[in-house]
Amino acid sequence: MRKPHHAIVSIAIVTLAAVNLPTAARAQAAISQPAISYDELAKNEAAANAESGKRVAPVKSMVSPANDVSSDMQAMIGAPYPPHFNADPKTPTEWKELIDRRAKLSIAGIPAMKEKLGVKVEETRIAGVHCFIVTPSKIPPENRRRLLVHVHGGGYVFGPGEAALPEAIMMAGFGGFKVISVDYRMPPDFPYPAAMDDAMAVWREVTKTHDSRRMAIFGTSTGGAMTLAMVLRAKDEKLQRPAAIAPGTPWSDIDKVGDSYASNEWADNVLVTWDGWLGRAAKLYANGTDLKNPYISPIYGDFKGFPPTILTSGTRDLFLSNTVRTHRKLRRAGVIADLNVYEGQSHAQYQFNVNAPETKEAFTDIAKFFDRYLKE
Amino acid sequence: MRKPHHAIVSIAIVTLAAVNLPTAARAQAAISQPAISYDELAKNEAAANAESGKRVAPVKSMVSPANDVSSDMQAMIGAPYPPHFNADPKTPTEWKELIDRRAKLSIAGIPAMKEKLGVKVEETRIAGVHCFIVTPSKIPPENRRRLLVHVHGGGYVFGPGEAALPEAIMMAGFGGFKVISVDYRMPPDFPYPAAMDDAMAVWREVTKTHDSRRMAIFGTSTGGAMTLAMVLRAKDEKLQRPAAIAPGTPWSDIDKVGDSYASNEWADNVLVTWDGWLGRAAKLYANGTDLKNPYISPIYGDFKGFPPTILTSGTRDLFLSNTVRTHRKLRRAGVIADLNVYEGQSHAQYQFNVNAPETKEAFTDIAKFFDRYLKE
Repeated sequence: MRKPHHAIVSIAIVTLAAVNLPTAARAQAAISQPAISYDELAKNEAAANAESGKRVAPVKSMVSPANDVSSDMQAMIGAPYPPHFNADPKTPTEWKELIDRRAKLSIAGIPAMKEKLGVKVEETRIAGVHCFIVTPSKIPPENRRRLLVHVHGGGYVFGPGEAALPEAIMMAGFGGFKVISVDYRMPPDFPYPAAMDDAMAVWREVTKTHDSRRMAIFGTSTGGAMTLAMVLRAKDEKLQRPAAIAPGTPWSDIDKVGDSYASNEWADNVLVTWDGWLGRAAKLYANGTDLKNPYISPIYGDFKGFPPTILTSGTRDLFLSNTVRTHRKLRRAGVIADLNVYEGQSHAQYQFNVNAPETKEAFTDIAKFFDRYLKE
Repeated sequence: MRKPHHAIVSIAIVTLAAVNLPTAARAQAAISQPAISYDELAKNEAAANAESGKRVAPVKSMVSPANDVSSDMQAMIGAPYPPHFNADPKTPTEWKELIDRRAKLSIAGIPAMKEKLGVKVEETRIAGVHCFIVTPSKIPPENRRRLLVHVHGGGYVFGPGEAALPEAIMMAGFGGFKVISVDYRMPPDFPYPAAMDDAMAVWREVTKTHDSRRMAIFGTSTGGAMTLAMVLRAKDEKLQRPAAIAPGTPWSDIDKVGDSYASNEWADNVLVTWDGWLGRAAKLYANGTDLKNPYISPIYGDFKGFPPTILTSGTRDLFLSNTVRTHRKLRRAGVIADLNVYEGQSHAQYQFNVNAPETKEAFTDIAKFFDRYLKE
């Protein structure tokens, strides 16, 4: 207990900030500074936390968790930040360049994923909205009349067209469900409420011919927020409601409100911080609409009457608080709500690598939940 | 987005470490230093996280979360570290002084708590072990033949005698259950396996006269680990098993293994760090026994055949990973496992203030879970 303390080895990153070192050298310097002792650290922290109301935590250098985490997942948890984490596009053209660049990466992985999971994808239009029908080669008997609606993630900007398919393909393949994935309109061309209007148009149309007791809605991050907001709108518009929903780590408060926006900032290596591209996308999407509008930040909606809900997050997830606030608010409203939190995972990492055991586990848990609450 | 960034305002605590300022002055200096810009911080963080395998997070100053958190809970979340967080007793006498000092604080609050919840407490011995029978004035009909066994928390050192009663009283009062609270032997006089042997002796004795299908075991922190370890021992010793268990934020890995031991270190204002009194208590308790022994760190046990389990934690909990690793390992073993994670809470804060709405909420959720799985 008297050995130099991990939490402080990188303190030099701040004092070196003014020095104009090349990036690699600066990072190297950051981790090669002498550490202060645990005793000194404890004394400093006690002093910095001597007053009520704030919590001061020191610089931390954290290794990837190794226990109860697969090697595939460890690699994701330990990866550097994505290059675009702090992107700041100034024009619609710059946004589109970034969106296209990321879309190409996503699309490149789709053929192998379809092959691995035995899933086919067809394009269609439903109520005028571009959609994909995602169908697994094997649908178990109990799922033959069931239908899922998928709203993809990506901060309301990423994931146009086929780029949004991975989650729909994994749900279809791992769960054995037919899925409609909604390719809703997005900024910079179409801010709020276009995305929600498209999703609701599809929902309204599909529930004309399908029994909503056999249907669920799911999606991650932005798709999780939209899933929640769709139920709010279905309530408000007196439409049918799904029999279950699976908002994965939902962006339920689009503003930087919630504890893990601070506690997991810079620890989450997917979103990293609200202050990067994420918050910029939030403002681009809201386009002047109040960020507390429940169709934008569904945590401010009324969850009474919601269908059974399963939520998924990770201990380093920037949206851990979005997830648990939603979970608690659902339970406080008397809704059946299930929560899975994965060791060490940052935002939505349970769905980034089709080969990681945790990916199959997450989708299988959701599929079992749907099986419990959807009529056959 | 260009305003000075909260995460960095307290960087001076480190550079001031060598300066011999009085505590208050040092803390004041720590929060009055000029901040660096968000852009500079983002650049530094990107550089510090340019390589795989580690995650470097900067100094953070976090306010207490205000949304979906009661004012009572906000006050707890924002409180300074406990004075004993880094206690390092060198002798049995020093341990006992610390234990007694903390016990007095706990015992002082008990009369008001009994009064508020309408609960009476009687001392008894079961299989030679000192126990308390905790009985609420009102027991609903469905709970009349049900019985709960409570194993208290406190790092295997704190909570002797009546000092362990608050959780038992709250479970009895909020849940309407009769509770047996086990006053198991503890270090420094009685290291492992005395605590477990006492708990098992009580379990063995009580299940002779009570139907274990009407019984549950619960406890928080150390009591959560003991709850899990009791089921492991019941399996190994071919004893009856409880119908449900509620290990709250269990110390399932007694060693500093698990992501939140790092990610929530210095953010959790209850345990603060494993490297303080906590890890010292771990070694005192284990007394040379392997920390990976499943009766000491039940995460290393086989969870197959476990009864339905409800777990509780918070986003700042040092044991968040202990909790979610346990939850996932239970589900992977096919066990019904429910998880509640509270916004902003540090370790076990859901049971420290009988007046906080989250306290009633947590115990009510556990009571409902028991009601679902215990025979009437």
